Amino acid sequence: MTRFFTDTDRLEAFSDGVLAVIITIMVLELRPPQGTALHDLLPELPAIATYALSFVFIGIYWNNHHHMLRASRGIDGRAMWANLNLLFWLSLVPFATAWLGRNPQASGATAFYGFVLLMCAISYSILQGALLRVNGRDAPFAKAISVDVKGLASLALYVAAIAAAFFSTFVSDAIFIIVAVMWFVPDRRFEPLINRLHDNGNFDLS
Amino acid sequence: MTRFFTDTDRLEAFSDGVLAVIITIMVLELRPPQGTALHDLLPELPAIATYALSFVFIGIYWNNHHHMLRASRGIDGRAMWANLNLLFWLSLVPFATAWLGRNPQASGATAFYGFVLLMCAISYSILQGALLRVNGRDAPFAKAISVDVKGLASLALYVAAIAAAFFSTFVSDAIFIIVAVMWFVPDRRFEPLINRLHDNGNFDLS
Amino acid sequence: MTRFFTDTDRLEAFSDGVLAVIITIMVLELRPPQGTALHDLLPELPAIATYALSFVFIGIYWNNHHHMLRASRGIDGRAMWANLNLLFWLSLVPFATAWLGRNPQASGATAFYGFVLLMCAISYSILQGALLRVNGRDAPFAKAISVDVKGLASLALYVAAIAAAFFSTFVSDAIFIIVAVMWFVPDRRFEPLINRLHDNGNFDLS
Amino acid sequence: MTRFFTDTDRLEAFSDGVLAVIITIMVLELRPPQGTALHDLLPELPAIATYALSFVFIGIYWNNHHHMLRASRGIDGRAMWANLNLLFWLSLVPFATAWLGRNPQASGATAFYGFVLLMCAISYSILQGALLRVNGRDAPFAKAISVDVKGLASLALYVAAIAAAFFSTFVSDAIFIIVAVMWFVPDRRFEPLINRLHDNGNFDLS
Repeated sequence: MTRFFTDTDRLEAFSDGVLAVIITIMVLELRPPQGTALHDLLPELPAIATYALSFVFIGIYWNNHHHMLRASRGIDGRAMWANLNLLFWLSLVPFATAWLGRNPQASGATAFYGFVLLMCAISYSILQGALLRVNGRDAPFAKAISVDVKGLASLALYVAAIAAAFFSTFVSDAIFIIVAVMWFVPDRRFEPLINRLHDNGNFDLS
Repeated sequence: MTRFFTDTDRLEAFSDGVLAVIITIMVLELRPPQGTALHDLLPELPAIATYALSFVFIGIYWNNHHHMLRASRGIDGRAMWANLNLLFWLSLVPFATAWLGRNPQASGATAFYGFVLLMCAISYSILQGALLRVNGRDAPFAKAISVDVKGLASLALYVAAIAAAFFSTFVSDAIFIIVAVMWFVPDRRFEPLINRLHDNGNFDLS
Repeated sequence: MTRFFTDTDRLEAFSDGVLAVIITIMVLELRPPQGTALHDLLPELPAIATYALSFVFIGIYWNNHHHMLRASRGIDGRAMWANLNLLFWLSLVPFATAWLGRNPQASGATAFYGFVLLMCAISYSILQGALLRVNGRDAPFAKAISVDVKGLASLALYVAAIAAAFFSTFVSDAIFIIVAVMWFVPDRRFEPLINRLHDNGNFDLS
Repeated sequence: MTRFFTDTDRLEAFSDGVLAVIITIMVLELRPPQGTALHDLLPELPAIATYALSFVFIGIYWNNHHHMLRASRGIDGRAMWANLNLLFWLSLVPFATAWLGRNPQASGATAFYGFVLLMCAISYSILQGALLRVNGRDAPFAKAISVDVKGLASLALYVAAIAAAFFSTFVSDAIFIIVAVMWFVPDRRFEPLINRLHDNGNFDLS
């Protein structure tokens, strides 16, 4: 009865494109060392490590974004803008990564990195809420996301990491890594639902 | 009876790719601050705000471009070049954004930013006209775009913003924001038409 | 009877992605002027004009590449490498554009720009030849490309432009523009063939 | 009986996007010469040659990645992360290329270039192993990759190239070129399998 004016395919394609560019242009911030010996790479290690961490975060978002959109029965204008809002904050990750990579122990750069990740997490929740509206409160989608422990824990951890940055950036770094590990496993809440929605698709060759 | 030598799918895919790159490489213009404290971000705020504004504009174009192409029954060579022309002007947005971001209160940079947005809007109208030719004057597409109030208002507002830049760049900035807000809602003229064209598609699961 | 181990879809998608990035990152070479007034844009005009010319060339390649691949019944390993070879030379266009944009009247930069365009044209011919092998000499594809006047004329014109660069770069520039205008019209040789191949497709709604 | 929670399509699309950006942004490392004559390009030749070599390597990965994913009956979470890990190491290729391109005869830069290629090759093997798990040890996929001579030879050659860098970078360069030539031919192990899996597809028009 409810009509959706667009499907999720092109939104996914555009989001994938933006995420692919985000995850890749970050590497442009890694500047070749001035020297030519292997040990000249050492001063670049913090930048490389920060890049690797951000790469994992963008990869996690790509993965979960993929699952969430596939589990939704459609999108509306509100969800489309919630998605663009998420992409906006994710697009600031390269900027925050570049700043932190050059100043790995600076409170300001660490707190800002945490702030951008926090805004990404909040934006992801907003998108989830917008998709919830599209699917309806009684839909399988709603049940799948009913208990969002990891989402809430992430928000709290990011806030803690931002606060910790002004005392010890090592604590902040540890928290960032904990969140990344926590999300490393794909969001399995949507799996049974996706299997049901796409059961007659041609990608299950078993 | 009329034959179209290509469908809209690959044109959309290529346009999406270009728009995804445009919207993302703009962030490369945001340079990490020299300092390491949070207040060192303050001088970057105008650049970040300009980036956010341009992000919204590209997002709006992506969204409406998506709707307009889906509503059209095909494209021809003329529409293909009209589309490339639009992409060309949109590709200048990062350049204009970088200049304005560094000189947020400069008349010249503000006027040029308005000029690029004006050329994007004119190019969008040209593409709309080319698609109108493809669909024919009696087609549902023609009826959907018959009253293009927002399009004409935008052109007038951009011209006003360019002129205002030489007296008060704040007025220009306000006009840019007004246009963005005005277009924030997706172009609903095409929705019933899209629903009709794609009614037998498999993306409406209701 | 002949078996092709892959279809053209993903090759097109990858090529589109590369072309979308090429056409867009060229704009990163346009640096915001040091000054803030409109007339400070004047020294940038040659760079912007060179960018526009290269944008048109990449657009032409995208368009004709699209038509040629759609007209082919498949690709093989040889065609895949011929395609990568074409993408390689096209990927040097931003480099050549940046050099020419900064030195619009330099013989060396003009000749190199012509050389890169010449290599692109030769690579396109090689790809055409590889696809001819896939389709067979009696296939409709072979008949469609039997008289390649524009292709041969382009090669001759590029050689002339390279030679002219050492006497008058204006002559070279004029030749570049002539070739672009010559190719502006999509390659209509493949249209009837594409229409026949895709006649039962769902993109013709007439 | 085994259920896969996702198909390979969007993973391929995202990987293609990342690979398209990687292969193209490398060209941003090629800086226009300071001079304007053709002979001013000479000092850029090592950088251009290194770029060409990396372009071929990324092209090889794209090609074989394409074949391997198409031959697999699906992916799981483990394969998805193995794929991201591969993309991470591939994304370091532009960084290693930029360093080597500026210091073509430096031991450190050459060894690091070999190290990044080695990690890409190891990551590719890990992805292959993850897909093997998805397909099962008795599946056609397992038989197709049963004898991975080229893969093992590449690992050994990369290690040799890294060691050789500290004695003669010319030997390392020669080894890199040998590996590239060795992989130039597409991975034909998967072809019969792909033909069988996709036999009823619409891309074989013969």
